[in-house]
Amino acid sequence: MDVGFIGLGHMGAAMATNILEAGHAMTVYNRTPGKDEVLVRKGARSAAKLSEACRGEAVVTMLADDHAVESVVYGDGGLLATLRTGATHISFSTISVALSERLAADHAAAGQRLVAAPVFGRPEVAAAGKLFVVAAGAPDAIAAVQPIFDAVGQKTFVVSETPKAANLVKLSGNFLIASVIESLGEAIALVSKGGVDKEQYLDILTSTLFTAPIYKTYGALIVEGKFEPAGFAAPLGQKDIRLTLAAAEDLRVPLPVANLLRDRFLTLLAHGGEKLDWSALGSLAARDAGEAVN
Amino acid sequence: MDVGFIGLGHMGAAMATNILEAGHAMTVYNRTPGKDEVLVRKGARSAAKLSEACRGEAVVTMLADDHAVESVVYGDGGLLATLRTGATHISFSTISVALSERLAADHAAAGQRLVAAPVFGRPEVAAAGKLFVVAAGAPDAIAAVQPIFDAVGQKTFVVSETPKAANLVKLSGNFLIASVIESLGEAIALVSKGGVDKEQYLDILTSTLFTAPIYKTYGALIVEGKFEPAGFAAPLGQKDIRLTLAAAEDLRVPLPVANLLRDRFLTLLAHGGEKLDWSALGSLAARDAGEAVN
Amino acid sequence: MDVGFIGLGHMGAAMATNILEAGHAMTVYNRTPGKDEVLVRKGARSAAKLSEACRGEAVVTMLADDHAVESVVYGDGGLLATLRTGATHISFSTISVALSERLAADHAAAGQRLVAAPVFGRPEVAAAGKLFVVAAGAPDAIAAVQPIFDAVGQKTFVVSETPKAANLVKLSGNFLIASVIESLGEAIALVSKGGVDKEQYLDILTSTLFTAPIYKTYGALIVEGKFEPAGFAAPLGQKDIRLTLAAAEDLRVPLPVANLLRDRFLTLLAHGGEKLDWSALGSLAARDAGEAVN
Amino acid sequence: MDVGFIGLGHMGAAMATNILEAGHAMTVYNRTPGKDEVLVRKGARSAAKLSEACRGEAVVTMLADDHAVESVVYGDGGLLATLRTGATHISFSTISVALSERLAADHAAAGQRLVAAPVFGRPEVAAAGKLFVVAAGAPDAIAAVQPIFDAVGQKTFVVSETPKAANLVKLSGNFLIASVIESLGEAIALVSKGGVDKEQYLDILTSTLFTAPIYKTYGALIVEGKFEPAGFAAPLGQKDIRLTLAAAEDLRVPLPVANLLRDRFLTLLAHGGEKLDWSALGSLAARDAGEAVN
Repeated sequence: MDVGFIGLGHMGAAMATNILEAGHAMTVYNRTPGKDEVLVRKGARSAAKLSEACRGEAVVTMLADDHAVESVVYGDGGLLATLRTGATHISFSTISVALSERLAADHAAAGQRLVAAPVFGRPEVAAAGKLFVVAAGAPDAIAAVQPIFDAVGQKTFVVSETPKAANLVKLSGNFLIASVIESLGEAIALVSKGGVDKEQYLDILTSTLFTAPIYKTYGALIVEGKFEPAGFAAPLGQKDIRLTLAAAEDLRVPLPVANLLRDRFLTLLAHGGEKLDWSALGSLAARDAGEAVN
Repeated sequence: MDVGFIGLGHMGAAMATNILEAGHAMTVYNRTPGKDEVLVRKGARSAAKLSEACRGEAVVTMLADDHAVESVVYGDGGLLATLRTGATHISFSTISVALSERLAADHAAAGQRLVAAPVFGRPEVAAAGKLFVVAAGAPDAIAAVQPIFDAVGQKTFVVSETPKAANLVKLSGNFLIASVIESLGEAIALVSKGGVDKEQYLDILTSTLFTAPIYKTYGALIVEGKFEPAGFAAPLGQKDIRLTLAAAEDLRVPLPVANLLRDRFLTLLAHGGEKLDWSALGSLAARDAGEAVN
Repeated sequence: MDVGFIGLGHMGAAMATNILEAGHAMTVYNRTPGKDEVLVRKGARSAAKLSEACRGEAVVTMLADDHAVESVVYGDGGLLATLRTGATHISFSTISVALSERLAADHAAAGQRLVAAPVFGRPEVAAAGKLFVVAAGAPDAIAAVQPIFDAVGQKTFVVSETPKAANLVKLSGNFLIASVIESLGEAIALVSKGGVDKEQYLDILTSTLFTAPIYKTYGALIVEGKFEPAGFAAPLGQKDIRLTLAAAEDLRVPLPVANLLRDRFLTLLAHGGEKLDWSALGSLAARDAGEAVN
Repeated sequence: MDVGFIGLGHMGAAMATNILEAGHAMTVYNRTPGKDEVLVRKGARSAAKLSEACRGEAVVTMLADDHAVESVVYGDGGLLATLRTGATHISFSTISVALSERLAADHAAAGQRLVAAPVFGRPEVAAAGKLFVVAAGAPDAIAAVQPIFDAVGQKTFVVSETPKAANLVKLSGNFLIASVIESLGEAIALVSKGGVDKEQYLDILTSTLFTAPIYKTYGALIVEGKFEPAGFAAPLGQKDIRLTLAAAEDLRVPLPVANLLRDRFLTLLAHGGEKLDWSALGSLAARDAGEAVN
C-alpha cells in the first residue's frame, strides 16, 4: 500500500519501521523535523508539509492525545481537507470515544473513511511487530488496511463497524491495567506492613494465581519503588482514566474503581509525579499507611 | 507421619485423601458423622470423639471459619487440651489474622506448636494434589510437617516464622481475586453498554494482556451471568474481605478497593445473593448502569 | 443603571423583576419569545435581538449551563462583539471555572469587564430578593454593579479579583449540598433498616445537631421519597458535580466524596431519573441495601 | 431516685453532678480512685467496690467503649450479678449495637432492665445539663428513669422499645458529623488551592446554607489546622465509624461514605494522629492535594 505516517514517537517510529519493512510505500510527517531520518534512510519519503503525507490510499496517525489528532485532522492542510475520496484514516492513537465519533462523522461527510485501531503493547513489543490491534470500522475498509495491521501486530481483533467501539475497548484495557496496579499496591502495602517480604510475596502471587505478565511487570516496579524512567508516564495514565470516565459518563456507567484511580493520579501529580511511570500510583497505598516509600 | 484430620468439606476431603494415599497414618474426625466413610475404606481410622484425632504427631484442621476452628481448638476434648507436648497443629483454614495470633500464643503456652498453612486452589485443584501452600511457623516445625504439604500441594512457600503472616498472605490473595472480579465487572459493563460484544471482549482481554486463568474463569462467569451453583459462595467471599479489612485496620493500612468490595458483597447479600458464587459481585456494575443482568 | 438581562428561567425572571423594581432601566432578551411579557408590563424594554440587550453599562446573564453562556457571548451579535468598551458582563450563571477564565480573558481583550457573581438560593428565595451573591472581579467593576447585587440579594461576598474564584465557590457549595444528601441517605437507610422510624429520626437530627435548613429540606424529601416535581433536577446536579470534578482535576485536588456523588448521579440517570429532584440520589443507599424505595 | 453512677470521665462527671444536684441519691464508682472527690463533697456516697454502686433502683454507666462496659456488667460483682430484680441499667455510653443487644438479653434473663440512652453533646453541653438523650427500652422502664434524663438533658427522644435502636441512632449521628468534617475538608482543600481565602470561605458557608453549629465548630478547626488538644480524639472517632460499619454489615447496608471515613481515620492514625481531634481527618484532602497542612 501507499501510506502516510504521522507521529514518530517511541511507539510510532517502531510501527512505521515495521510497515516500511513489510514493503509498503510510506511518506512520513512529524511536527519535529529530523525525527524521520532513520525511516528515510530505509526508503521512506519525508513530507515537508502535512498535506504531502495525505496523498496515498491511507494515512496513519499515532499521536499522543486528542489535541494532537485534532490538529492534524482539522488543521490547515490536514487530513480532512486533503485525503482523497475513499482514502482511509487509520487512527492508532489512544483518543477519546467522543473524538473518535466526531472523526468518523467528519470523514464520512468528506467521502473518506475512518478505521480506529488502537494497539496494546509497550514500545519493545511495537519494535518486535507483536502488538495487538483492536480495530473497528467499515468491514471493507478494515479488510483493505489489514496488511498494515499485519505489519505492526501479531493479531487483529475486529470489534465493531463503529470506530469508537475500538477506542472504548482500548481505554477499558488501560483502566484494567491501572486497576491491577492499584490492587497490587494495596495488597503489597498490607502484607509488607504485616511483616511479609515484598519480593517473596510478589513471587508467590505471580507463580500461583496471578501469572499474567502485567502482574510481574508492575508488581516488580512497585516492590522496587522504581518509577523512573517512565515506560508510560503518569500524565498519560491520568489522561486515559479521564477519557474512560468521560466515556462512562456519556454511557451512564458508574465506575467506582476508575474514580479511585482518578484520585490516585491526581495525588501523584500533586506531589510532583509528572515524570514517574504510572505504576507509581501503586505506591500510594503504602504512603497512606505511613510506610516510607522507597 | 501419624496425623489427625478435622474438617471433611469439599476441600478437606480431597486433601485428606491425598495425605492418606501418600502413606501417612490418619485418624479423621468430622462433626457430621458418616462423612469419613470413603476415607475409612482407604485405611483411615474414624474418631468417635474429637480427642481421638489429637493423639498423633500432628493434627490438621481444614474448617470454614474462625468459629469452627475455635470450637475444635478450645472446646471440650479439643486440640489445646489433648494434643501432646511438641505436637503440631497444622491450620489449613482461611481464618483471621487475630485468631491465628491467639492460637499461636495458646499452643505455645501448652507446649504445642502451630503452623499456619492456608492453601490456594479450588476443590478440583485440591483433588489433584496441586494446591499452593503458604506456610508460616517455627522452621523445624514446618520441616517436620513438610511431607504433609507435599501430599496436598505442588509447592510450599514459607513466608515467616510467625504463623499469622501466612494467614495475611492468604487473605490478601482472596482480596486480589475479588478485585479482579470487580474491575472486570466494571470494564464489561462499560464496553457492553457501549455496544461491544461481551464474549469477544473477554476473549481479547484474555488472549492479550490478561492471560492469568482467573481472568478467564471469572470473566466467563460474569459474561454468562452464571453464578449458580457457587464454586465459592458469596458469604465466604464477604467473610474474607471482612477479615482482610480487620487485619488492615489492626495494621492501619487503608484499603479503598477492599472497602468497595465490602459494599458490593453487602449489596449482593441484601438482594438475596446468599447462594451465588462470589463472582456475582461482578454483575453489580452493570446493574448500577441500568443494564438487565442476565 | 441601564442594564441588559439575558435568561428568563425561574431564577432569572425573579431576579430581573427585582432589578427592575429597584428602579434600574432594563432591556430583556430571551431565546424563547413571550417570556418577557410580565417584565415589559413592568417597564422593561424587549430586545428583538441579542445585541439590543448589550447596549447599556452592564449586561446580566442567568443561563442554564456553559453552552448557553457561550452561545450568547461568542455568537453573532453576542456580548463580546457588541458590549461597549468599559461595560461589564455580570455572569450570575453556575458555569465551569474554565469557561469563567476564558470569558475573563476574552472580555479583557475586548476592553470589557467580567464580574462572576453566582448566587445561592432556590427560586422562592430569588423571588424575595434574598439570594446570597458570591462575586469576583475587578474591585471597581464590582463596586459599580453593587446596586444590581443589592436588588437581587441580601448579602454580597466578594471573594477575589479573579472572576473564576466565585464560580469555584459556587460549585463547591453545590458539592457540599449534594454530600449532605448522600450522607443523609446513607444514615436514613441504616437506621430505617435497623427498625427506627425515618420521620422521627429526621426530627431528632434536625432538632439537635443538624439544624441547618438544608437538612430539613432534603431530609424530608428523602424520608418521603418525594422527588417530583424537581426543584433542582438531577441532570443539573450531575452537571455541577462534573464541573466541580473538572475544576478539581485542573487544580489536582482529589475529591473522593465528589467521585461517589458522580457515580450516584449516573446510577440515577441510568435508571430513568432525568426528571427527579437531585435529592433522589439520597434514595440510592436504601436501594443498595435492598429496601423498597417509596 | 437512688442511683449508682459508674464512669467519671469528662462527660460522666458532668452528668453525675447534674443528677446529684437535681436531688437524687447517688453512689459513685470509678476504677481510678479519687475521681469522685468533688461529687462526694456534694453529697454522693463513694463505692469502694463496684457492687456497692448497684444497690439502688438504677445504675448509670457512662464509659469509653464496649470493653469497659463489658467489664463492669459481666465482671466480678458486676451489674448482672448484683443489680436487684426490676432494677434498671441506664447505658449512656456509645457502644456497639451488638453489645447493646447482648446486654438487653442478659439483663432480661436476670430479671433486670436495660435502657439504652446515648447522648449528643460535647462536655460543655453536658456540664450545662443540655444534652440530647436518645432513649430506647421498655416504655415503663424509660418512664421510671425520665427524671435522670431530665437532669442531664434538655430533651429526650424515645426511639424504640428495643434498646439497641438508640445505639444505632447515636452511631449514625457520629457518622453524619464525621461526614461533614470530610466534605468540608474536601471543599476547603479545593477552594483554597484555587486561591480563595479559607476563613472567608467558611464565613460564606456558615452564614448562608450551612448554619448548623457543627459547620462552624469543625470548619474553624479545619481552617485553623488546630487539632490539639482533642475535644473528641481520633481513636474514639475511628471506633464509632467501626461500630457504625459493623452495625451496617449486620443489617447489610452498604455505606460508601463511612468506608471513606474509615480509611481517613486509619491514615490519620498511621501518621501519628492518636492525640489529635477527630476533625483532623478534614486535613487529609489538602494533604492529598499536595498542600502544606498548617
